[in-house]
Amino acid sequence: MADSKVLSAQQISEHKTSEDCWVVVNNQVWDVTDFLEEHPGGSNIILKYAGSDATKAYSEVHAPSVMKNNLDAEKLKGVLDESTIDAEWAKPPEQNPKVVLENEKAPLHTLINSHDFEVVASKTATNKTWAFYSSAATDLLTRDANKSCFDRIWFRPRVLRNVRSVDTRTNMLGGSYSLPLFVSPAAMAKLIHPDGECAIAKACASKGIMQGELRTAAPSADFFFQLYVNRDRAKSAALLRQCSANPNIKAIFVTVDAASPGKREADERVKADESLSVPMAPSKAQNDKKGGGLGRVMAGFIDPGLTWEDLKWVKQHTHKPVCLKGVMSADDALLALKAGIDGIMLSNHGGRNLDTSPPSIITLLEIHRRCPEVFEHMEVYVDSGIRRGTDMLKAVCLGATAVGMGRSMLFATNYGQEGVEHLIDSKPIGGSVLTCANAIAVMQDELETSMRNVGITSLAEASPDLVHTGDVDHLVPASRSHPYARAIAKGRADSKL
Amino acid sequence: MADSKVLSAQQISEHKTSEDCWVVVNNQVWDVTDFLEEHPGGSNIILKYAGSDATKAYSEVHAPSVMKNNLDAEKLKGVLDESTIDAEWAKPPEQNPKVVLENEKAPLHTLINSHDFEVVASKTATNKTWAFYSSAATDLLTRDANKSCFDRIWFRPRVLRNVRSVDTRTNMLGGSYSLPLFVSPAAMAKLIHPDGECAIAKACASKGIMQGELRTAAPSADFFFQLYVNRDRAKSAALLRQCSANPNIKAIFVTVDAASPGKREADERVKADESLSVPMAPSKAQNDKKGGGLGRVMAGFIDPGLTWEDLKWVKQHTHKPVCLKGVMSADDALLALKAGIDGIMLSNHGGRNLDTSPPSIITLLEIHRRCPEVFEHMEVYVDSGIRRGTDMLKAVCLGATAVGMGRSMLFATNYGQEGVEHLIDSKPIGGSVLTCANAIAVMQDELETSMRNVGITSLAEASPDLVHTGDVDHLVPASRSHPYARAIAKGRADSKL
Amino acid sequence: MADSKVLSAQQISEHKTSEDCWVVVNNQVWDVTDFLEEHPGGSNIILKYAGSDATKAYSEVHAPSVMKNNLDAEKLKGVLDESTIDAEWAKPPEQNPKVVLENEKAPLHTLINSHDFEVVASKTATNKTWAFYSSAATDLLTRDANKSCFDRIWFRPRVLRNVRSVDTRTNMLGGSYSLPLFVSPAAMAKLIHPDGECAIAKACASKGIMQGELRTAAPSADFFFQLYVNRDRAKSAALLRQCSANPNIKAIFVTVDAASPGKREADERVKADESLSVPMAPSKAQNDKKGGGLGRVMAGFIDPGLTWEDLKWVKQHTHKPVCLKGVMSADDALLALKAGIDGIMLSNHGGRNLDTSPPSIITLLEIHRRCPEVFEHMEVYVDSGIRRGTDMLKAVCLGATAVGMGRSMLFATNYGQEGVEHLIDSKPIGGSVLTCANAIAVMQDELETSMRNVGITSLAEASPDLVHTGDVDHLVPASRSHPYARAIAKGRADSKL
Amino acid sequence: MADSKVLSAQQISEHKTSEDCWVVVNNQVWDVTDFLEEHPGGSNIILKYAGSDATKAYSEVHAPSVMKNNLDAEKLKGVLDESTIDAEWAKPPEQNPKVVLENEKAPLHTLINSHDFEVVASKTATNKTWAFYSSAATDLLTRDANKSCFDRIWFRPRVLRNVRSVDTRTNMLGGSYSLPLFVSPAAMAKLIHPDGECAIAKACASKGIMQGELRTAAPSADFFFQLYVNRDRAKSAALLRQCSANPNIKAIFVTVDAASPGKREADERVKADESLSVPMAPSKAQNDKKGGGLGRVMAGFIDPGLTWEDLKWVKQHTHKPVCLKGVMSADDALLALKAGIDGIMLSNHGGRNLDTSPPSIITLLEIHRRCPEVFEHMEVYVDSGIRRGTDMLKAVCLGATAVGMGRSMLFATNYGQEGVEHLIDSKPIGGSVLTCANAIAVMQDELETSMRNVGITSLAEASPDLVHTGDVDHLVPASRSHPYARAIAKGRADSKL
Repeated sequence: MADSKVLSAQQISEHKTSEDCWVVVNNQVWDVTDFLEEHPGGSNIILKYAGSDATKAYSEVHAPSVMKNNLDAEKLKGVLDESTIDAEWAKPPEQNPKVVLENEKAPLHTLINSHDFEVVASKTATNKTWAFYSSAATDLLTRDANKSCFDRIWFRPRVLRNVRSVDTRTNMLGGSYSLPLFVSPAAMAKLIHPDGECAIAKACASKGIMQGELRTAAPSADFFFQLYVNRDRAKSAALLRQCSANPNIKAIFVTVDAASPGKREADERVKADESLSVPMAPSKAQNDKKGGGLGRVMAGFIDPGLTWEDLKWVKQHTHKPVCLKGVMSADDALLALKAGIDGIMLSNHGGRNLDTSPPSIITLLEIHRRCPEVFEHMEVYVDSGIRRGTDMLKAVCLGATAVGMGRSMLFATNYGQEGVEHLIDSKPIGGSVLTCANAIAVMQDELETSMRNVGITSLAEASPDLVHTGDVDHLVPASRSHPYARAIAKGRADSKL
Repeated sequence: MADSKVLSAQQISEHKTSEDCWVVVNNQVWDVTDFLEEHPGGSNIILKYAGSDATKAYSEVHAPSVMKNNLDAEKLKGVLDESTIDAEWAKPPEQNPKVVLENEKAPLHTLINSHDFEVVASKTATNKTWAFYSSAATDLLTRDANKSCFDRIWFRPRVLRNVRSVDTRTNMLGGSYSLPLFVSPAAMAKLIHPDGECAIAKACASKGIMQGELRTAAPSADFFFQLYVNRDRAKSAALLRQCSANPNIKAIFVTVDAASPGKREADERVKADESLSVPMAPSKAQNDKKGGGLGRVMAGFIDPGLTWEDLKWVKQHTHKPVCLKGVMSADDALLALKAGIDGIMLSNHGGRNLDTSPPSIITLLEIHRRCPEVFEHMEVYVDSGIRRGTDMLKAVCLGATAVGMGRSMLFATNYGQEGVEHLIDSKPIGGSVLTCANAIAVMQDELETSMRNVGITSLAEASPDLVHTGDVDHLVPASRSHPYARAIAKGRADSKL
Repeated sequence: MADSKVLSAQQISEHKTSEDCWVVVNNQVWDVTDFLEEHPGGSNIILKYAGSDATKAYSEVHAPSVMKNNLDAEKLKGVLDESTIDAEWAKPPEQNPKVVLENEKAPLHTLINSHDFEVVASKTATNKTWAFYSSAATDLLTRDANKSCFDRIWFRPRVLRNVRSVDTRTNMLGGSYSLPLFVSPAAMAKLIHPDGECAIAKACASKGIMQGELRTAAPSADFFFQLYVNRDRAKSAALLRQCSANPNIKAIFVTVDAASPGKREADERVKADESLSVPMAPSKAQNDKKGGGLGRVMAGFIDPGLTWEDLKWVKQHTHKPVCLKGVMSADDALLALKAGIDGIMLSNHGGRNLDTSPPSIITLLEIHRRCPEVFEHMEVYVDSGIRRGTDMLKAVCLGATAVGMGRSMLFATNYGQEGVEHLIDSKPIGGSVLTCANAIAVMQDELETSMRNVGITSLAEASPDLVHTGDVDHLVPASRSHPYARAIAKGRADSKL
Repeated sequence: MADSKVLSAQQISEHKTSEDCWVVVNNQVWDVTDFLEEHPGGSNIILKYAGSDATKAYSEVHAPSVMKNNLDAEKLKGVLDESTIDAEWAKPPEQNPKVVLENEKAPLHTLINSHDFEVVASKTATNKTWAFYSSAATDLLTRDANKSCFDRIWFRPRVLRNVRSVDTRTNMLGGSYSLPLFVSPAAMAKLIHPDGECAIAKACASKGIMQGELRTAAPSADFFFQLYVNRDRAKSAALLRQCSANPNIKAIFVTVDAASPGKREADERVKADESLSVPMAPSKAQNDKKGGGLGRVMAGFIDPGLTWEDLKWVKQHTHKPVCLKGVMSADDALLALKAGIDGIMLSNHGGRNLDTSPPSIITLLEIHRRCPEVFEHMEVYVDSGIRRGTDMLKAVCLGATAVGMGRSMLFATNYGQEGVEHLIDSKPIGGSVLTCANAIAVMQDELETSMRNVGITSLAEASPDLVHTGDVDHLVPASRSHPYARAIAKGRADSKL
């Protein structure tokens, strides 16, 4: 057998490519070329030792017998002639780590979660862009609670269920998508990358997920149109007509959580600081103290006078499903149900409008507690605070059809379309579930990992029984009426002094 | 049409003032002079590009069509002749940010919330002033809880309500004021600015809000008089006579939360440190170890012997409404009701007297739970911990008629009358609600933003149904009697050893 | 009148001592010699301006009329001749603050609370002493909770009660003491000061408070004797005989919370580090790995075999009251009651023995909830975590007869007897309550301030109604029996595999 | 008597070894050779003063009479002739503390708890090893809660129980072990020490505790075999046959909490960073983006398709007890009971697989609440988060038969077998309980200390009555069914849009 063939270090070192790869382990010489792609730990780690001695790295991880048990005997090419080892051959693999500077974007493949994209953006975007993207209302309490409330919900994982094949596909607005995830419509993606909204749209299309848009950014697959109703209704009517003609638009989402632009102080400060460089303000601008962070600029055209009556008007101007974006209470979820709305997105605008408005996942729990019938008749989406596959799964377990990510997608746009794809990383619609086993990061991978570890293989199995909300239940309102409300109202009505 | 007129960069650059302002966007030259004040983002941002190319800044924020849709066609003055662009014209707007030194007051317009005033004061006031203003009793637990309890109360915002016009006016003590906010009477404002109490009084008058005073500081509009009953009743009687004669005084507030001056350690330490510079204390002062922080000095004349009986005496000496300042329990709210008091201010003196005395907003909730009838018969005010418009709105939702700010107003006095006005920024009484749309910061703007986003347009609509207190409910006492209190009392009564 | 007399700066500057003190305010010259001691803010602040112009300092604090209203007209000596002001006279009072080095004890009068003593000790005591005093069991959870649980109990202060005269005296073990505070017996006070236990004993005697002792340290007033029962009962019997003969010993406290010395890691580490300097350990010490922090050394003679039976033995050997030191559960409080014990000290040994043993104040609440009858028949003392007058008052409100301080007293011993007195600062027994109004710091002053602000004038009025424990109630066990305990016991009893 | 014998300093200094040790205290010269080992504080502290004057150190700790009371009169050798003291003799004992460098392992005896081993490993292990050992899933929430939930459970210690002799022995899987502690099977111990798993196995054998193994690492005493069921059942069957033949294997533990390898980001990042040094990835590896942290590598062969059916197959292939490792819910505990399983190990894999999976101690409480009958029929083990003897005791009180430690044991392997022994430090089976009184650290010592201080002497007495879980009870699910689950399911079933 080949075991007896004696090979010199120099002979072995000729087989050092991915097409022809030998390695030495415990003085035995193995041809691992065909095994490269099967290696559970990936081929890179083996290729580092191509043509040389991998004993040390191998032994740290594997028992001596693993190699023999997993490779055919014919792959054993011989034994190393130790007398032929020279300094060159014995040298460990090179270690020239490339240095990434503080204000330079790290290579995309080194980003492994949504937080990484945020960190890179904080260091490489302009102050103005960072301020607009990251800021939220006043003391940031809602922004932070959006995330921490997810962290305070615990799984109740089940074991010994066959989770070999996991299917993350979901139905939403009548279509089928690869993930219960959509990109929330976000403004001004061009601030961080010239491709801006187009990069996002193309990534969503290629990855088969739903997206929201503020305007038609790119030739794309399915999306929903997020409508900010204009003070000038005629303009909104025109927009709705355009939407009706576009078969890719699956629904109209009417924005209802932006009655007034929030006070986003980081954003305001960028503007304020800038003013310092203008020592003499022109006379006309003397009363122009209104800050003017980008958030306020954007909000200038939105109509704060929108009411449930206007929704009827919207429904008359489109045959598409009409949904609400920005519901923050069970009461309004019920009103939406009564108004014949097709779906509601629970959202506090990423905490950007009203500080201490409730985290969306808390509103979802309020609907559970006060009006579960909502889930029978409307799709419910959740926005604000989603950072992890576990967050996605928790929302779906608690009744959400899908969740939206906004800020994180903007941060990913820092790397253009490829960045957004890396963050999503789902498989194309209709693609085999199993073939993408090789894909990594981020949201798709995290969701699959979470589903397997919680013991389910499809989102239809995601149920409230798989989570425990005891650590946040006290944050969930249980009823509407307050006995003392009457006393306060009476006191106000009376003239007392 | 003007679209065809070709203009050189030099021609364009002549129109660069607020009276005559052209900008270039996508090579089109627009006259935006009349639009400057309409611009939702303010005029400053446009004026930065007056007479030059604004394409880059414009595109980051607006779709290409926005300009055409919002300006009359005649404002399009022509197209830029790109061949005329020279280095001078192409130069980006200047960026010479003025540097503000650490111990220098930042320009007033860069302060955008109440915290900013505190930060500036911490850096620019003397140690002694800062210690007196910022200090509170011992471990600062109540001072900090005053704020954090507001942060732990969540809104339950309603959507799709017409919130175009918001009215923040309120009635208090029979008068009408522009905000449910008053300035709590605060001592020694002169420490931070020579105008001291006068600056505050004038700002309150100009902004149409109620204020409390310790003495008549300035010719002013309505105010209430805060009485510290003197050990020498005759002096207090004289004061009450003066008050009766002053038509601007709307009520007498008897201070009841200062039975003993608290131990404000930062304040004490300033004094203690100072002593280090006096190596030999004169013999007479040998037993003069009593600290003597400003807080203790101030309290020297206050009578710790005040009782409910004395209130009758006060009521006999004035025909004005008599209120209590410093109620910290539902029990005393009830006693006040029985004593025929006209209003109560829940206050723990900013946490300055007794550490771990309850935050005022908790006392408000205790009244809800134990004696809501109080709201039917007395006005209830809340002091201590108010820093944000959201705090104001929460207190009003929970039954407060108005809230007071003390420390923050002192910090704003750092900038004199203008500073206090900037912090309040309400509109004059009787002024149009809408005309102040251009005003910014701080409390008025924050309150309006909060009201709109919670879905109400007048404070009469503010109700307990709009907030959720689940995160602090365990801090609220539900009853008075303790079953074990009897056992303790019995044990004490018996002689046991 | 004197008002017209013109005085030169030089004339005025001759009156600059505490026996003859003039100051200038708004150009008026006042003789304030007799007022020095009446000044609520103390005399020092005035003496700084003796013989010179005090206008600036005066105006910051007082209205112009205060001086005229408080001084007799004859004290007005004249008016300043401004033309006589020279540079010397105009110079502000000297500011030569003495610099205290980091490792140097700050002057005693600059220490204003118990934390200050700890800070100074941490910087000036030896590593070994600091480690022994400050250390507690393993992760310090109980040590820290001892304090934080007090901080999470809130007062419910009452207003408008006459609190002019406050009496902090209490009865304990049949005697009367100036404060509901005793010094817990603490070992090895000599580590921080040569006077050690004597300093403490003398301070307690001079201040009229009860103390615990491990041995007779000094000629002193009343104390209780803390007995660590020796493995050799004869030695303990001898000790008890000595105690019986000593009329100053008011009770015997049998230590029951030290069944095994805790693992105090800071203490152990000092020893461990020291070992590093002994490169070769002698052969006999090879198995001598037992750490040997001072805590373990101290515990070597204590008997871990003590039982309720032994208490009968103790009671037979003394006619003095017998109390337990170290009760940590309502169950043992009940057993103590049944055993005819005269009092119990709730203590976890400052968190030094068993980490996550319950804070004593929680055990006090457990007794409330489960066996309030204990308060009718035994005195209950609380140890561990007391740092503030508010802590003292809360414990007394909740039923404690008195509280003990241990660590803080050791830290105060850093300054000898005077330091301990400064920390206690009560008045002698029988002394007038009002005459000590001039005394400052620390525990006495804090307790009086707390009592006044909570609205009581004697400790007999301290009741559970004055505190709210809602933030810690979930930490209090409500019952003993667990339904599942049976299942566990049954599982253990059965042989299953 | 010897008291009168006058000895010179030079004479005394000749007795300075552990075989012949004299010390001077208060000028009296004592022979303490025989007392060295009896000294409660250890002999080292005395030997430091061998042959010289120990008065200062002695007096800090002991009363003057202690020496006379504890030593025979004949040990008093004489009195010091002070005139013979010279500079050499008076010199204090040497203090040459050895300096341990940051990246150097501290001497083993200076490590006194499990955290110390972690700290040393963090500084001395390679980045790769540290990342693999310390990492956990995504945001580390479960890893940290594993520990903090133990910290939030409080003891209810009982006093006055005879705790002289403490017995920590327990029965597990039919055998008797010296501690209720086993070493959880942990992979790749060789990364930190060449002896790897052998070091652990030998330490467990010598210390008489149970251990888990992934493969037969060493000739050892009892252990259980942790089975990762292979995708290829034949291989697992072969393994089970081997196990059946090995009398040392007491049970088969089937791993059920590793359905999918978790996303351990620290681990992934080490790999990702490494990639930076490979500028050109070979073509075959282009799609090899799969991270490949060691965790993922290890998981490659585990079968995610395992079900309860497979357990029947396992039980058919072995006559040994079959247990589950990785139960995370009361529901699966019940299923295990129904499936005839012999024991369950509650484990979330150290938080390494699914972030926000419940801490094991919470699952233990869920079993209490929902199905206490489990304890009657199966042994229950707890893994994940154990760092202290108090943690061990709490788990046993709440029904656990024994607890496992994984990470800490790997960190201890840094010092080879001796390190693991130091961390365990139990006594050999059958050894006298009392003879090991001299042993120190770590887990054995901490457990004994905890048992004594909580008032028990054997683990049979450990009951739920000795702990209070009020601070974590809200984290424990009380039931399975959710009323709203039906509405969500119905909504999903209906086609709504």
